[in-house]
Amino acid sequence: MAQQGVTPQSEDFSRWYTDVVQKADLADYSPVRGCMIIKPYGYELWEGVKGGLDRRFKATGHQNAYFPLFIPESFLKKEAEHVEGFSPELAVVTIGGGKVLEEPLIVRPTSETIIGWAFQKWIQSYRDLPLLINQWANVVRWELRTRLFLRTMEFLWQEGHTAHATHEDALAETMRMLGVYADFAINDAAIPVIQGRKSSQERFAGALSSFSIEAMMRDGKALQAGTSHDLGQNFAKAFEIQFTDESNGLQHCWTTSWGLSTRMVGAIVMTHGDDQGLRLPPKLAPFQVVIVPIFRDEATRAAVMATVERIAALLVEGGIRVKVDDRDNLSPGFKYNDWEMRGVPLRMEIGPKDVANHGVALARRDIPGKEGKRFVSQDGLVSAVRETLDAIQANLLAQATQFRDSRLHKVTSGYADFIDVIQRGEWALAWFCGGKACEERVKDDAQAVSRNFPLDQPHPGEHGPCVICGTEAQEMAYFAKAY
Amino acid sequence: MAQQGVTPQSEDFSRWYTDVVQKADLADYSPVRGCMIIKPYGYELWEGVKGGLDRRFKATGHQNAYFPLFIPESFLKKEAEHVEGFSPELAVVTIGGGKVLEEPLIVRPTSETIIGWAFQKWIQSYRDLPLLINQWANVVRWELRTRLFLRTMEFLWQEGHTAHATHEDALAETMRMLGVYADFAINDAAIPVIQGRKSSQERFAGALSSFSIEAMMRDGKALQAGTSHDLGQNFAKAFEIQFTDESNGLQHCWTTSWGLSTRMVGAIVMTHGDDQGLRLPPKLAPFQVVIVPIFRDEATRAAVMATVERIAALLVEGGIRVKVDDRDNLSPGFKYNDWEMRGVPLRMEIGPKDVANHGVALARRDIPGKEGKRFVSQDGLVSAVRETLDAIQANLLAQATQFRDSRLHKVTSGYADFIDVIQRGEWALAWFCGGKACEERVKDDAQAVSRNFPLDQPHPGEHGPCVICGTEAQEMAYFAKAY
Repeated sequence: MAQQGVTPQSEDFSRWYTDVVQKADLADYSPVRGCMIIKPYGYELWEGVKGGLDRRFKATGHQNAYFPLFIPESFLKKEAEHVEGFSPELAVVTIGGGKVLEEPLIVRPTSETIIGWAFQKWIQSYRDLPLLINQWANVVRWELRTRLFLRTMEFLWQEGHTAHATHEDALAETMRMLGVYADFAINDAAIPVIQGRKSSQERFAGALSSFSIEAMMRDGKALQAGTSHDLGQNFAKAFEIQFTDESNGLQHCWTTSWGLSTRMVGAIVMTHGDDQGLRLPPKLAPFQVVIVPIFRDEATRAAVMATVERIAALLVEGGIRVKVDDRDNLSPGFKYNDWEMRGVPLRMEIGPKDVANHGVALARRDIPGKEGKRFVSQDGLVSAVRETLDAIQANLLAQATQFRDSRLHKVTSGYADFIDVIQRGEWALAWFCGGKACEERVKDDAQAVSRNFPLDQPHPGEHGPCVICGTEAQEMAYFAKAY
Repeated sequence: MAQQGVTPQSEDFSRWYTDVVQKADLADYSPVRGCMIIKPYGYELWEGVKGGLDRRFKATGHQNAYFPLFIPESFLKKEAEHVEGFSPELAVVTIGGGKVLEEPLIVRPTSETIIGWAFQKWIQSYRDLPLLINQWANVVRWELRTRLFLRTMEFLWQEGHTAHATHEDALAETMRMLGVYADFAINDAAIPVIQGRKSSQERFAGALSSFSIEAMMRDGKALQAGTSHDLGQNFAKAFEIQFTDESNGLQHCWTTSWGLSTRMVGAIVMTHGDDQGLRLPPKLAPFQVVIVPIFRDEATRAAVMATVERIAALLVEGGIRVKVDDRDNLSPGFKYNDWEMRGVPLRMEIGPKDVANHGVALARRDIPGKEGKRFVSQDGLVSAVRETLDAIQANLLAQATQFRDSRLHKVTSGYADFIDVIQRGEWALAWFCGGKACEERVKDDAQAVSRNFPLDQPHPGEHGPCVICGTEAQEMAYFAKAY
């Protein structure tokens, strides 16, 4: 419970991250190597992410369903690239009910195959299309180097799977869901992500093309926070997902898949956190306001607590998520630090003087010290709190955007400058041919690969020499070190 | 899509169940033996169950968290009864990332052990108690004979795990959560469950005592719909879950666990369903109202659809879950049958005459034919719909209670009558010593075991001769055939 400080970001960003995740009670290591325990505070943050996404999925016509955890080994082998991509990462059940299984079962690393099997059964005619399904589930990928939230052997995610009559429809869905992710990231998580297409080297195993939202962390590194894939007819052909069209012909469907995971929690931590701990965007914070009662003795306690409880009830009624910290064995100062560590956007202090003055003190997490503190009247308090929360939400996005923009560099001056930008931990936007050899060279020279070809190209329709090999390139891509 | 009828309940209840689950699009078989696919409509019903429970858990001070899917084999062995109970049912991962694992990993059949490990780390002092945690998760138990929702190898559930300073507190929690389950079952699912204590033979592997809610299905069989366990100090001792008490002494905690699963969906189907299909309680129905527009030609279509859309928007605004069935290739009659199969509580028909009369027709799913149909004005429609939904909710509970009560028999006239009641598919309440030999005898004679010793005893404080062996018994227990 005693929250000592965390390692400063400037000293060791990686240790800062681990410190904050543990001291803010988001997650903990588990006795199973590579698996984590998501603690209540971290899970509530994930519930916020889930809620924000689920609403958007339903508003765009998607339905949730649930498919088996186990996938027959033979299913994975039906799509050649897919099995090649996932084979090294599989957890395999070989014993069930005390007996060795005839066919081993794979613990799902993703569900294109088993959902493909179901779609083949469910889809007969063009009238059944589009079929728009989402699943909230756990998946397992055998990772050797794991980090809480960012890369764990088991993680929680959603995976959308859709089937369409034409490639045009499938591609439109792929882009629509990329847009849903970006909308969520920007407006709920206050993370100014960049939407774009992955290079062929970096795309999903089995996809025609993959798209991502890329976020910049406080150490300058990139984090892929969500992906959306145009699967073409690859899985439809592997699983015989066919439909009868309006002229009674039999056609293969066009499918998509898209996923966002508990990694997003890590992205929120590393986009907004500072040396005092988390800073949570109000829209996702488990508690938007923490009320700390202040009193010296039993005489003032009753009056203060009566006011605290009345105001807490008012805020709750106003739809605001409130925590009253009435722990009696801790000082107000300790509580301030504790809730700063947990990133609660707004702290409300109520003491005897505030009771007398019919006021409260409000302290913003995003503006440290006296500058972020003001005294307001208890009249109209709900509106004042709401406006302040909106201002904090906007400020976190503005700060993250400013931080990001100051570290994005369009490089047209040559390979040395390009590598230099990446080496110093910033992002280089440059003409890129998309070739494998070029991508490998950057990996060797700067331990970085391309992040994406942003949808928002600085020179649409133009072309230029690939910053690596000099051949003519049609698009510019971001390169950066990444998680 | 063409919904043919289902096998009548009276002909073959088991086939009726499977027909309804599939034709109402709740679930489907999967390519992995024993695992099912929960289809969107079934998953939405489960989301209703989740919502109703989660609200109640949070209102009673519980927090959600998430623990690893995999449990080291050694953990299970720490509690002797626990490992003995679960060993035959385990799925075991022996290969990860292409290598044979040094210690196999168990796919969780339940999480007492790994959560016990975490509690040991999280709990230091009496100030950390009670610790009230819930997890929404998938679990795997290797079942040979499976049935959709009722018994599947993988199922979805919630498992609550709590730790307390005293046995009294732990027992109070066990009973509180049993009460939460009963409250949910009765008030949301309209299932009049009976709360009680399981016999020693039927209790959870590792518990001091187990409690259940038992529901009666339309074939008279019992279904255990939720359980709550007083684990004593068994898991606390196995996992060293200790705390420092107020006088600085070190003590083992007292723990509880409680769970409710996707089985509840099967209970809802088999409590309320009839030969036309599902009948869903309005509080949990994915759609509370389906609107079927009726028109003969394009001329009347526009006016009807304008009214339909206006009314749908009004209902949605009033917090009612509405589906407009505007499929243009199906007749109204087909749609009526289809939505009856899916158990939508209230159907609203709107045709040209209704538009002219400023009215709509309402047809209740729970009252067949003309008796359940009436014409109401479009004025005050939202209130009329709300009241009708409340009446349907109450009627389903009343019908299920009447059905149940007519099949509960207190038997004091001897073993032959007792077995006779069970054999004809009803429930016998009789004095029971709780002994293993007696339970075995009933199993042999009537393929039934005790369901529970109801909390609500007909002769509290009294005693009588065990209906099986004649020795003095302190309590009466229900016996019935069961799922």
